[in-house]
Amino acid sequence: MSSRSVQVGIIGLGTVGTGVVKILQSRAKGIAHQLGAPIQIAGIAVRDPKKARAIEVPAGILTDDPMELVRRPEVEIVLEVMGGTEQARQYVLEALRHKKHVVTANKALIALHGQEVFDAAAANGVGVYLEASVAGGIPIIKALHEGLAANRIERIYGILNGTCNYILTQMSQQGASYQEALAEAQRLGYAEADPTFDVDGLDTAHKIAILSSLAYGAPISIDQIYVEGIRRIQLEDIRYAETLGYTLKLLAISELRGSALSVRVHPALIPSTSVLANVQGAFNAVAVVGDAVGPTLFYGQGAGQMPTASAVVADLLEAARTVLSGRPAEIPLCWDRRKAVAMPVLPMEETETRYYLRMQVEDRPGVLAEVATILGRYRISLAAVIQKEPTCAESVPVVMLTHRAQERNLQAALREIDALECTRQPTVCIRLEADV
Amino acid sequence: MSSRSVQVGIIGLGTVGTGVVKILQSRAKGIAHQLGAPIQIAGIAVRDPKKARAIEVPAGILTDDPMELVRRPEVEIVLEVMGGTEQARQYVLEALRHKKHVVTANKALIALHGQEVFDAAAANGVGVYLEASVAGGIPIIKALHEGLAANRIERIYGILNGTCNYILTQMSQQGASYQEALAEAQRLGYAEADPTFDVDGLDTAHKIAILSSLAYGAPISIDQIYVEGIRRIQLEDIRYAETLGYTLKLLAISELRGSALSVRVHPALIPSTSVLANVQGAFNAVAVVGDAVGPTLFYGQGAGQMPTASAVVADLLEAARTVLSGRPAEIPLCWDRRKAVAMPVLPMEETETRYYLRMQVEDRPGVLAEVATILGRYRISLAAVIQKEPTCAESVPVVMLTHRAQERNLQAALREIDALECTRQPTVCIRLEADV
Repeated sequence: MSSRSVQVGIIGLGTVGTGVVKILQSRAKGIAHQLGAPIQIAGIAVRDPKKARAIEVPAGILTDDPMELVRRPEVEIVLEVMGGTEQARQYVLEALRHKKHVVTANKALIALHGQEVFDAAAANGVGVYLEASVAGGIPIIKALHEGLAANRIERIYGILNGTCNYILTQMSQQGASYQEALAEAQRLGYAEADPTFDVDGLDTAHKIAILSSLAYGAPISIDQIYVEGIRRIQLEDIRYAETLGYTLKLLAISELRGSALSVRVHPALIPSTSVLANVQGAFNAVAVVGDAVGPTLFYGQGAGQMPTASAVVADLLEAARTVLSGRPAEIPLCWDRRKAVAMPVLPMEETETRYYLRMQVEDRPGVLAEVATILGRYRISLAAVIQKEPTCAESVPVVMLTHRAQERNLQAALREIDALECTRQPTVCIRLEADV
Repeated sequence: MSSRSVQVGIIGLGTVGTGVVKILQSRAKGIAHQLGAPIQIAGIAVRDPKKARAIEVPAGILTDDPMELVRRPEVEIVLEVMGGTEQARQYVLEALRHKKHVVTANKALIALHGQEVFDAAAANGVGVYLEASVAGGIPIIKALHEGLAANRIERIYGILNGTCNYILTQMSQQGASYQEALAEAQRLGYAEADPTFDVDGLDTAHKIAILSSLAYGAPISIDQIYVEGIRRIQLEDIRYAETLGYTLKLLAISELRGSALSVRVHPALIPSTSVLANVQGAFNAVAVVGDAVGPTLFYGQGAGQMPTASAVVADLLEAARTVLSGRPAEIPLCWDRRKAVAMPVLPMEETETRYYLRMQVEDRPGVLAEVATILGRYRISLAAVIQKEPTCAESVPVVMLTHRAQERNLQAALREIDALECTRQPTVCIRLEADV
């Protein structure tokens, strides 16, 4: 065992910060054993050092001055677990300028300011470790970076938001409406009072931006991503999909299409017998398809105190190994200006996939032919059709699954179909994706 | 980019070796970009250098003298992809004595001679990288070692043999008998002509021995593991299980029980809606439960040329990073004599789990009471009972699911039940396990 310890400064003692301190306290001996040196908490920056805490920390360790903490000469690694972007950005940049390695759980910080943060890290010869920023405790960033490093990544996709997956699972399993499932998620603390960031797919978009950047070595920004959330999902469509053998999930998808990428977040149907379809409740799963390894999948809790703390401490151990070895830290290719490649992102209209369509049409002969004629004109062919008994006197639901079609053609066809005299409601359109 | 290259010697150019060379050739530029230095193949040892090969290799690179290759001064990393244990062991030990890092895909070598191999590595300050030895392309060893390093591992279990999983999937999906499914697996190359090593669970036992050792930091040997294969599985039980909501898989299970471990390989029923139950065909999946992260799961192809080569090359890149950094390699705790802890392994009779039982009993009043009385006497309580219509004139199948019980009690109860006059066949007993 080395005679030195590794000194850590922690910014933030909220949910995740408390989890990190719990692990560092309860596993102190095991960590020292594994690492060959103990981890010592030099200080924890909080807003109010006098506030009562869920854990005991040594007297004098709390400070209300994060800037002073990140500049302290003895601090070697800074854990940023405060959240938010503007202040977190300032503390992280200051830490890097003072040649401290930084571990962060802050996906928004990386998705919005990744380039600036990694430039500062490179300029100062230190590392930024971000495992906890995507998919909580699932070691997906390490897998992409190292475990699958022999592969050209062809596709990365999955369930990256536990709130949405909890809501969709409740709808499917309990027959709850979207509003009921959301209320239950809020009651259990899986959803915020204002659920916008989760249910509109923005959180998922931040995460797939980071994963895409790492997987393809090309910086991908949020505004290049098509995003559609789950607010308008109806139980009826979940049920139709189930009878057709599909399960509805909010997916993030990033795939290589020639020399371009298709990156998008939207509700999608996947085969019910696939692994991803059976990811339930607040769990996350990320599938990665590589040219050598084929399909892989990584599953676990994507949020929560201890799963996120697990990832923060794993990164802390890696940063500590770097500190102890004296070797320089590596910068991910996508944020290494000498090595990053630019990759064009396809406009959504050029995406190709399969579709589930539900129309509400007049119940008279010839209607199906009118619809099919429009679809045929846009070269959209059908794989399955269900026409149910009328639910009201004069109109009837028709459900269709298409073969692969181009988004542009599909949207144009839907505009024509929705303008038909026989169409009673705007057509519901949900993409249908293959899974591992 | 560094001005040097990293020199690699490869022992074996069979299926995996060929896959490794394919990746090193096709991704040479990407790998050099990522690593900061190119990988160069210094030599490949084969039995017959004149034999026609599926790939082109530079003239003069093949040799029939592996000992000479591993001793060559310029070789820095040796990839052992020849398989077998005795010769592989000699070449690996010789490579380590000459201070070459070793990457191996050889689970038998590690399971049988891990301690000797890692002792030699430690004595010479080099590393042994073994990701490809368990679960093919799935980066599970890296996950255990690094991604989940903040956790105390509580349970590690999963589907580790693609041959068995293919056979069981065929039985369930196609209604095939065990013999039919095995024949199909052999026809497709998923099973060997002599399938013993796979279907009797030995391959799975080697893998769970390695994973357990890594997860708990304690060396676990093959002979400490209870092993039961799939030869005697009947379609009938798969069907009963399905009606009860369970799917049959061959599982490897290693779990903490107080300060001891329960390590075992046997067929098991798991809930059909769980992620693991939906792992189909030749795929593998490993679930890891940690005290902080909770349940996680890692899925992918557990064998085959390119998935295994993907793991070998990932390890090669890690070994190359170690070479380039000049830092010493790390030895896994379980094989580090200064740090390893010994952990007792519970005898199988002390294991506790749930059970599926199928009896064939005489069709007369009082029989169920006789059976239930015996179970009750051994403190085995029932969670579900199905008694079907008689399948022949005078006997009837009875299927039961128990609550948790001790293996010793269960086996004693079965001996009594099978000795009853009303019992027509030995009771079928399949363990029932919880899943993520």
